[in-house]
Amino acid sequence: MTLETLAQRAQRRRFLKPFAGQTAWPPPMWLMRQAGRYLPEYRETRATAGSFLNLCYAPELAAEVTLQPIRRYGFDASILFSDILVVPDALGQEVRFVEGEGPRLDPIEDAGGVSRLKPEATGEKFSIVAETVSRLRRDLPDETALIGFCGAPWTVATYMVGGRGSPDQAAARLMAYRDPETFQRLIDILVETSVDYLSRQVEAGADALQIFDSWAGSLADNQFARWVVAPTRVMIARLKEKYPEIPILGFPRGADQLSALFAAETGVDGISCNTAMPLRAMVELAEGTGRVVQGNLDPLLLVAGGKQLDDRVDEILTAMKGKKFIFNLGHGILQFTPPENVTRLVERVRSSE
Amino acid sequence: MTLETLAQRAQRRRFLKPFAGQTAWPPPMWLMRQAGRYLPEYRETRATAGSFLNLCYAPELAAEVTLQPIRRYGFDASILFSDILVVPDALGQEVRFVEGEGPRLDPIEDAGGVSRLKPEATGEKFSIVAETVSRLRRDLPDETALIGFCGAPWTVATYMVGGRGSPDQAAARLMAYRDPETFQRLIDILVETSVDYLSRQVEAGADALQIFDSWAGSLADNQFARWVVAPTRVMIARLKEKYPEIPILGFPRGADQLSALFAAETGVDGISCNTAMPLRAMVELAEGTGRVVQGNLDPLLLVAGGKQLDDRVDEILTAMKGKKFIFNLGHGILQFTPPENVTRLVERVRSSE
Repeated sequence: MTLETLAQRAQRRRFLKPFAGQTAWPPPMWLMRQAGRYLPEYRETRATAGSFLNLCYAPELAAEVTLQPIRRYGFDASILFSDILVVPDALGQEVRFVEGEGPRLDPIEDAGGVSRLKPEATGEKFSIVAETVSRLRRDLPDETALIGFCGAPWTVATYMVGGRGSPDQAAARLMAYRDPETFQRLIDILVETSVDYLSRQVEAGADALQIFDSWAGSLADNQFARWVVAPTRVMIARLKEKYPEIPILGFPRGADQLSALFAAETGVDGISCNTAMPLRAMVELAEGTGRVVQGNLDPLLLVAGGKQLDDRVDEILTAMKGKKFIFNLGHGILQFTPPENVTRLVERVRSSE
Repeated sequence: MTLETLAQRAQRRRFLKPFAGQTAWPPPMWLMRQAGRYLPEYRETRATAGSFLNLCYAPELAAEVTLQPIRRYGFDASILFSDILVVPDALGQEVRFVEGEGPRLDPIEDAGGVSRLKPEATGEKFSIVAETVSRLRRDLPDETALIGFCGAPWTVATYMVGGRGSPDQAAARLMAYRDPETFQRLIDILVETSVDYLSRQVEAGADALQIFDSWAGSLADNQFARWVVAPTRVMIARLKEKYPEIPILGFPRGADQLSALFAAETGVDGISCNTAMPLRAMVELAEGTGRVVQGNLDPLLLVAGGKQLDDRVDEILTAMKGKKFIFNLGHGILQFTPPENVTRLVERVRSSE
């Protein structure tokens, strides 16, 4: 682990500047899911890996795909190539990725299912991921920050209980209503396990962390407080105690209206905003909370390209000028994105004055 | 058409009171999709109808299923049983409902597809729906308001271009980026056609209208302004010119953060809020805009039932007490809702002091 302060690291890695209160314009930029299927070099490496989880657990290959978009585009930050379902897999739940359909898990249906999870057994798989992080820190350009990540307990729980992704997360939300004690036990296990997982990533060289809460947007306010805000607050408190110099971004996707509350109550250093977050609200969020704001170009505009892409990029940059801001997408980059549109985007952001 | 003023109708139909500025507590209530598969009597009628669209186009059967929840629960408002895809069907696009999978349409892919729509041919099917409305107004208890509805142009267009429902509406959003002129032509046709469709419903006896924009929540702010706000504003202006005494509710689902803007710029009389809208924000919306606010119990809580249902109902009622408020769900009632939980809900709301 580095003994440098955040301010010192930010001198070398401009991604960290907004977190250190240092001016950075053009804004630092990276793209969610920047290592992915839209890149031919990713598809080539992916084809050699066997299953998707194999790729996540093969440090050499996982590091390689993480580095690919950095070589191509020179983003200011790199994000560990992995998946939020590594945590349930490490806990002993069966996780499979079905080509073209997404993840499938043997769903947890009751207290018995929660009891069968093995938090004590997660070390082996987590240490493989930590090895990827170590390799990355060794192989990345010194000026490139390295972001570690995990899924937020709520979002990971929706997959563990539902057995798959779903637009309304009905299975998890129903368990949370019908049997809140059992659901709380599941969340508590995920909090513990995820703190351990992220700690190992920091120890191995991660500069910053992002907690992805992709399904935070479907919850009523009282459920949001209990299942999103409360567990995230505990995680951040525990991580900050050990690693006060490591910035943490939250991404409560779809809950943009509650972002200011989320920021105030969880203690995150930065908030990632999805596409539907109005620019005016992003400005207010940055000014009102003092937190770093990240976002929020529509990934579909990166598929469409052209003048509309340029115009929207300019709108975002104009709105966020002078704020603590990181340029990103509002969600992960899409498979059918032409790589040359990403080049166009990078040039546009980099030439912002 | 009635020559009564809104204030006069509100004397007899308490659903209308908040729109007429009259005090109403306990609040008027109805539930989105209250005529539906959770009711055994619905399933029975549905089984005799053949296809789902047949049911929509059979005035006697459509009126019957509309009346069923009124008989059972005595809601303050009835909503015409129909579907938002009646409009593309009437325009000549092929629409099928696949059991267990949802709607399938032959997608519109380009300007040619838009040109093949037949706005001039919609009258026949619209007049069948109007006949259902006439029957309903005759058969409903006098104290029950009758809500007519349609899908908002944006949401209907997402189905017409995508060929089905999708969580991200990528096809329509991409057409809107790549070929905004063609997409605008489609939206314009939907505005015209929907105004005609709603006008016929009013002429046949609808007391109020709701415009469902189920997929409004995925759009960046500039796209929301163009494809949600602008067409809705035109529709409402045209309807208000003809029917100033007919209240219009908007439901820009998932765009709750933009509800105040939506209210100010479209001229709607009321706004329906989805489950994720925080109660505090609903209160602010009611106070800030002066509009009627409707919502927003989680439909899953109505599946779960029990004390958690009671507690949340009480929270909503306490928050909205004294506001212009209509009790409803945050989204449509779910198929597996036990009908006795609806009884419990109705009793709880009705006993609110």
